[in-house]
Amino acid sequence: MGVAASIEDVRGRKPSTESLATLVADDMQAVNALIIDRMQSQVSLIPQLAGHLVAAGGKRIRPMLTLAAARMCGYPGPRHIGLATCVEFIHTATLLHDDVVDESDLRRGLASANSVWGNKSSVLVGDFLFSRSFELMVEDGSLPVLAILSRASSIIAEGEVMQLMTTNDTSTTEDAYLNVVRAKTAELFAAACRIGAVVADRPKGEELALESYGMNLGIAFQLIDDVLDYAAVQAKLGKTVGDDFREGKITLPIVLAYSQGDESEQAFWRRTLEELDQRPEDLDRAMDLLSRYDALSGTIDRARQYGANALAALEAFGPGPEKDAFIELVDFCIERAY
Amino acid sequence: MGVAASIEDVRGRKPSTESLATLVADDMQAVNALIIDRMQSQVSLIPQLAGHLVAAGGKRIRPMLTLAAARMCGYPGPRHIGLATCVEFIHTATLLHDDVVDESDLRRGLASANSVWGNKSSVLVGDFLFSRSFELMVEDGSLPVLAILSRASSIIAEGEVMQLMTTNDTSTTEDAYLNVVRAKTAELFAAACRIGAVVADRPKGEELALESYGMNLGIAFQLIDDVLDYAAVQAKLGKTVGDDFREGKITLPIVLAYSQGDESEQAFWRRTLEELDQRPEDLDRAMDLLSRYDALSGTIDRARQYGANALAALEAFGPGPEKDAFIELVDFCIERAY
Repeated sequence: MGVAASIEDVRGRKPSTESLATLVADDMQAVNALIIDRMQSQVSLIPQLAGHLVAAGGKRIRPMLTLAAARMCGYPGPRHIGLATCVEFIHTATLLHDDVVDESDLRRGLASANSVWGNKSSVLVGDFLFSRSFELMVEDGSLPVLAILSRASSIIAEGEVMQLMTTNDTSTTEDAYLNVVRAKTAELFAAACRIGAVVADRPKGEELALESYGMNLGIAFQLIDDVLDYAAVQAKLGKTVGDDFREGKITLPIVLAYSQGDESEQAFWRRTLEELDQRPEDLDRAMDLLSRYDALSGTIDRARQYGANALAALEAFGPGPEKDAFIELVDFCIERAY
Repeated sequence: MGVAASIEDVRGRKPSTESLATLVADDMQAVNALIIDRMQSQVSLIPQLAGHLVAAGGKRIRPMLTLAAARMCGYPGPRHIGLATCVEFIHTATLLHDDVVDESDLRRGLASANSVWGNKSSVLVGDFLFSRSFELMVEDGSLPVLAILSRASSIIAEGEVMQLMTTNDTSTTEDAYLNVVRAKTAELFAAACRIGAVVADRPKGEELALESYGMNLGIAFQLIDDVLDYAAVQAKLGKTVGDDFREGKITLPIVLAYSQGDESEQAFWRRTLEELDQRPEDLDRAMDLLSRYDALSGTIDRARQYGANALAALEAFGPGPEKDAFIELVDFCIERAY
């Protein structure tokens, strides 16, 4: 049985991020206040633009990971509030630069910042939030946390460059693609979890277990995102179906379908994704090919395996409400695909 | 007498960055090696793109400031090498993002990275170098240095956004423009100098004196850069005359000419700089107006005053070769205008 199905059996409801959100609700309110406070600047465009993205919401999964990880490790103090804010600032900065790189018009169902204020502002406000994040970390004063988050930031940037290089390259292998996902997405999940153990001053083993949980959760999360880009449920998220296809993005479903395709199918993928020579009926053909090679379900299967790894990492911790919420988060992550 | 003239009288030669470069030559070699080493990544585009900018050279004034400030403060160890590298990485990241924002085709006399590899790569490699800089700072392990450089990074980003907002706005005041210059350019000069005193563990007074030196030097440096954009010596630097004008950039010469201009002249500036409606003969007319209101010499006068402030800040330090080199640097900075 898959990870998700078993949980749904037990609780009789669809897994969601609700348990996690409820558990850290008070802390998250403090994080939200700190986000608003620390994105201020006498340069009015900065809070305007950052506020647009913050107001659009998003699930705030990354800062919630830090908050819940610290609590699961028994941390009683207030420092995890600042650190969760650092994590969200890094994420927000990355989103701003991502949208410039992707030339996206939508983000979290609203017009993206770059489409409203232009690419230049998005680049610079991203830089500001990134710097502000480091200022906050320095105020916290933990060199181990600074080491984890500065290293994560470098790796994220490397992952983004790797993704740029695999874009439009249908010869990308599954391994190469998974390296992109680890760096670009999962690294920040891993760091967000790990610093929860650091702030609680727990042994290295717990730090690494939380890092492994975050890393595996992050990979599963991204793979399901890749599936969702070709799935009908997309419309609900305010996104368009087939964005990745139109941009020539190589994601795991494509890698799986391409590698199993015959010569004429591979020629189709090269024309549409490498040369970006796309006709109105091409998205339908792409969906047919993804279905023929079980590329979406193959991707979900892999996500499920990473989800199982994430759950295994949690065995380092005793029972408790945070652990339960972390388990449900894995199931939610996979369940989104259905 | 002006600052520059007096020095030239005494030494009988034009001031340059040579004395400073000679003084820190060995340390600078170590910095260059560390730059090459730490910009490496298994993602080949990163060292390619960063290497392009590094190979193009530039004067490396900012890391030299850190090196010489540490030595002037009597620091005997090796840590200033890593910190000077951090400063140069922050500067390089800023240049990469700057060129994206300015849509520049040239940088240091060569094709800019964005014109070769595209804006996306420049944004992401800038992010990488910026993160790498923080990783290096964390390895150094000084929270006061981290505080100074993370704060400087936020202020630089604010300055860049302020500049974006004053671009094409002829109503920008001299004060508003100087705030841009302080944040965007002078702040990193100030931080580069200040951390020299921090690494040497000198009293706060020396830290602040070095910060003041760097801040005033940086303002003088930028104002002379503004003058150079309208000066014939430009061609030697591999830049084109009138780039700022064509982009509608508001710099101090423009602020001075606009504020003294009559109605038809102000209309000319608005048409050319706000509406960017420019005709072939407009750059000549702009040069005429700058000359009529002594806008270039007025800008040089102000730079000279900031230069004098920089020299005054050095009074906190006893005589020595580093202090001499810092004095000459101020004179060099102003002399470039002639």
